[in-house]
Order: sequence, then structure tokens, then C-alpha cells
Amino acid sequence: MTGPEILPLVLTMGDPAGIGPDIALMAYGRRREAPLPPFVFVGRAGVLQERARLLKLDVPVHVVDTPAAGLRAFGDALPVIDTGAALTVRAGAPDPANAPATIEAIERAVAMVRDGQAAAVVTNPIAKHVLHDAGFAHPGHTEFLAALVADGADVPLPVMMLWSPDLAVVPVTIHVALRRVPDLLSTDLIVRTARIVARDLRARFGIASPRLALAGLNPHAGENGAMGVEDDAVVRPAVEMLQAEGIAATGPHPADTLFRAAARGRYDAALCMYHDQALIPIKTIAFDDAVNVTLGLPFIRTSPDHGTAFDIAGTGRARPDSLMAALRLAARMAGSRA
Amino acid sequence: MTGPEILPLVLTMGDPAGIGPDIALMAYGRRREAPLPPFVFVGRAGVLQERARLLKLDVPVHVVDTPAAGLRAFGDALPVIDTGAALTVRAGAPDPANAPATIEAIERAVAMVRDGQAAAVVTNPIAKHVLHDAGFAHPGHTEFLAALVADGADVPLPVMMLWSPDLAVVPVTIHVALRRVPDLLSTDLIVRTARIVARDLRARFGIASPRLALAGLNPHAGENGAMGVEDDAVVRPAVEMLQAEGIAATGPHPADTLFRAAARGRYDAALCMYHDQALIPIKTIAFDDAVNVTLGLPFIRTSPDHGTAFDIAGTGRARPDSLMAALRLAARMAGSRA
Repeated sequence: MTGPEILPLVLTMGDPAGIGPDIALMAYGRRREAPLPPFVFVGRAGVLQERARLLKLDVPVHVVDTPAAGLRAFGDALPVIDTGAALTVRAGAPDPANAPATIEAIERAVAMVRDGQAAAVVTNPIAKHVLHDAGFAHPGHTEFLAALVADGADVPLPVMMLWSPDLAVVPVTIHVALRRVPDLLSTDLIVRTARIVARDLRARFGIASPRLALAGLNPHAGENGAMGVEDDAVVRPAVEMLQAEGIAATGPHPADTLFRAAARGRYDAALCMYHDQALIPIKTIAFDDAVNVTLGLPFIRTSPDHGTAFDIAGTGRARPDSLMAALRLAARMAGSRA
Repeated sequence: MTGPEILPLVLTMGDPAGIGPDIALMAYGRRREAPLPPFVFVGRAGVLQERARLLKLDVPVHVVDTPAAGLRAFGDALPVIDTGAALTVRAGAPDPANAPATIEAIERAVAMVRDGQAAAVVTNPIAKHVLHDAGFAHPGHTEFLAALVADGADVPLPVMMLWSPDLAVVPVTIHVALRRVPDLLSTDLIVRTARIVARDLRARFGIASPRLALAGLNPHAGENGAMGVEDDAVVRPAVEMLQAEGIAATGPHPADTLFRAAARGRYDAALCMYHDQALIPIKTIAFDDAVNVTLGLPFIRTSPDHGTAFDIAGTGRARPDSLMAALRLAARMAGSRA
């Protein structure tokens, strides 16, 4: 009889000129105090070694062939699956020439999880504009992951959740101009998003009956139509459809009072209608340890809730807290699924 | 030689069916522990006495003719300037028949401050729909106050600031549908609002060089036009005009990271482009002790940052914290002006 199979996490390199290598090294250095689940870096070993020298971090790097070998090595060295030849990288100076290596690390990491070699993918930040300059046509990281697992025309709807111990939020519309939000929002989009959130909170967070609070679009959730019609015409029908399906949805709630401490205990996730409605409260409450989780994919993916921060890459000023929270949450989600 | 003249605050009744009478009585009961500056209730004495009985609060009420007499009485009883005959009020059941008394209390209180009899007006909550049913044509409390001091067609621009010890925010557009915000926002409106904020932070908060942080309208402040043009076309020119006038304005800042603890110390007030962008962070951080301050008027006005809460009026469940903060801030502002 054997115990449950233990699989490591795979952590992608991200943009090698950003803080991804910095925080990977720093997190590894704090693996015992945290404690962190075992993870394997997928990218270029030379980038990590150079960054460790630059940061004067005494972190040994050990190249391995498989996640399983990485798991065995993790106690003594940061294991790396080296995806190719050395890159020329200057910390803080992004270079489209390195875009293929950034993309390949993501593809390899996803393949390892889908093959059953790793428990989850944790991604370091990429910079869309750097990848775009190299011909990357996806709007962002998350959409690229959805495209990687598309089955022909059947592309999953990836749902972004920002998670912290005190608050989880899901923006229903994300990286669009505020002007476009009212027209992009539909009852169907809200319902499809909420179903994915409810399903993944059950399957991957172990919440038997997830409670979803839907924020209103307008001030005071429209105040009975006095300030906008969408809350009654679009959001409320979504709440009713979800309730009819047996999902514990409530709302539309006035957004301004939805995130105070006394209200946060009444739901497991807040569905917000646009980017800042979701990100303002969580970044205000949990700036350093919020985690970005992608729901709706056939594998677990988390990432730190910040960007490449080119301006501080290689300086030692980056903080690994959000990456460490992302690693811990990915392991927790993988355990909950098993 | 006499010391500086001490003037009491005047506190309006608000909607008599709401929690205004409850929190006035509760705040008076806690005047010593708080401590609170002296204030005089302007409205109907009978409403207060009945509410005290309902709440079983042992707060003596003393009718006075002038704020000066109220100041002398304040140590022993809650002083009331009685504005008329007894009303029939049922706590929690608003009645348009009482609208004239609600409005008269506001008019009388403002007149006393403008006459130099009181230091500032603190207003209890009103319910627009109750007043509208009685023919009140103003969009809200604040606009009514501006109209009261209008000089012919010259109506001041009243600016709403939500203030707490940790964060002050000013929504540039307020009670409008989110869909209308991008078109209502103009460089001129932002600049006029910011000038009033800067002037009043100097004159009434004693801040010699107020620092104003302007939030972007779009996610990531538009990310160089990738997500909306308004941040570059409307907000940035406002920042530049303000800087040219010598006002310490910065932005447009991405709104999601503007309210975390580490960022809040960098400005005295954040100018936000719409209601929830301003109210989400302050209600998340300071739900019970945020104060609503109206800038841009020729007198000082604060109010608690909540509504009439008809559902809990007369039950004892209302909390006077925000009113107490409003009273303290009004006194501080009056002292700073003097």
C-alpha cells in the first residue's frame, strides 16, 4: 500500500527581465519558515543563476529532467527544468528576443500538469507588450492558457479570481475601458461566470455550498432605477437564474458597503462587474498576499497578483509574499481536488 | 481681554422617522467619554423625547431659544431649538407630511451658522424620496445646501469629501449611472473640484500644501490608451493644469493600488472619478467612522456617512460612531478656520 501520490508544483519563469526570477529565488530561500510546498522552476537555469549572483542570494540551482526529480531535489536546491540554451537577459530591460523562451516555459509547465506530472501551474508575471512585439496575439496570460487547452473551437471561459484569506473577488469584465463595461455586461456572461466560480469553489476549495455576492454596477446598485437600469435589467435576472439552479447567489448589492469587514463574512466570493470594483477592495485590504487564481480551466493555475515590476527587477526590492501565497494556495487547491 | 469666542455646532434633525434622533441621543449620552464638542439639536423637541422613551435612554432634553443658550445648557441636557409644533412620527415609517419640518430644520441651522451664532452645521440623514414626494426638487442634501446659499444664478459647486483618519476621498462625479460617467467627466470639472479641495484643505484642515492624488478612470489608468482614452485625454491635462497653478496634484494613478496602506500616506485626498471608486475604499477601511464633508460652501458642513436606516430606527441598533466623528471633525474644521 502506498500513500497518496505527491506531485510538485511547476512555477514558470515569466518575463526573465522582470521580478519573476527574483521572487522565485527569494521564495525558495524562505521555503522552510513559510513553509512552502515543493515547486520546480520551468525556464532557463542560467537566468536564475545570474539573478542569484546579482542579488547576492546563496540559492543553489539544480537542473532536473522531470518534476518528480525536482521533487526529490527540492530540499537541497531550487530545481529547474531547463527549457533551452542560455538567454541574454538584463534585469529590468525587457527584450522581445526572449519572448519565445517566456512562452515556451508556460507551454511546458501546462503540459506537465496535464500529463499528471505536476499538481498545478503557478505563473510568474509576463509583460503583454513585450510578447505582443514578438507576435503573441492573446490579450493576456489567462487567455493564452485557455487557448492552450482549447478543443477546436471549444475554448473554455477562463475566470479570474483574486483570492486572499479575507476576501475573494471575481471581476466579470476585466481589462476593458470603463466606458465599454455597461454594454459588455450581460445576464448570460454573469451567469456563466458565476457557475464556474460556484463549481470551482466546490471542487477546488472544498466549499460545499458556495455563497456568491453579486455587486451592483451602479452607485447604490442603481437605487431602483434612479441611477442606471442595468442592476434591475441585467444583474438581478442573473441572481434569479442562479438561485433557480440552486446556487446561493445574492444581490445586486451596493458595492460600496459590500467589502467592509462585517459584510465579508456573508459570502465566499464577490462577483464584481468591472476591474476596479473587484481590485480596489482586495488590493486595499490584502496588497501583499492576494493571489490571482484562474478558474474554469481543466488544471489549477495561480499567480502572484502583481506585474513584472521591471523597475525593481534585480534590485532586491521585490517582495515574494504574493508568489509564496500563490504557491501555498495552489497546493491547497490541488489537495482539495484530490 | 476675552478668550476666543466659543460657538456650538448645530445638528439638524434629519428625517424624524430615521435614525437621526436615535444617534443624536446616543452621541449626547457619550459626550464625555468621546469627548464631543457642544452641539444643539435643531428640529422638534417632541421627536427626541419620544425616541428617548422608545429607546429607554435617560437623556434630558432642554428647549432653548438660541445656540448660545444651548451652549450653556449642554453640560446638563441635550439642548434643542424647537422649530414648531409636535409631529406625528413613527420610527421607521417615513411620512411626507413631516417633510416641511425636516427641511425647515436644515434652513434654520444654516441660517444660524451664517449669522455667526453657530460654528458649523452637522446634518442628520434625510431620505430624498420622502422629500421628493413633498415637492423637494433638489437631487440631494448637498445640492439643497448649495441652493440655500446661492447668490442669484451664482450657485457654488458643492464638493463631497468622505473623510476618515486614514483616508480622504472625493468623488468627482457622484450619484449618476456608471454609463454616464465617462461623458460627464471633463478636465474642467476635475480642475474646478480639485481647486475647491485644495483651498478647503488649506483653510479648514490646516494643511499648508495639500497633496491631491487623482485616480484614473480606467483599469491601470488606461495603460497608455490600451484600455480607454480618458485618462490621457481628460485626467492627465487636469493634473497638468493643477500643477501649473501650484497645486501638488499627481496622477492619473491606477485606482486599484491607490488605497493600500503604503500609498495612502502619499496624499491628503484622493480625487476619484466616480462614486464607487471613492466609496469602496473608504467604506472598506473605515466603515463606522467615515464622515461626509461638504467642501465649497461658505460654511462648514459635515454629516455621518450613512442614510436614514429606517429599518433600524427606534430599535437601539443604530451606531452613533459616524455622527460622533462628524461632530468632532466639524469642530476641528471650525477651529482650524479661526
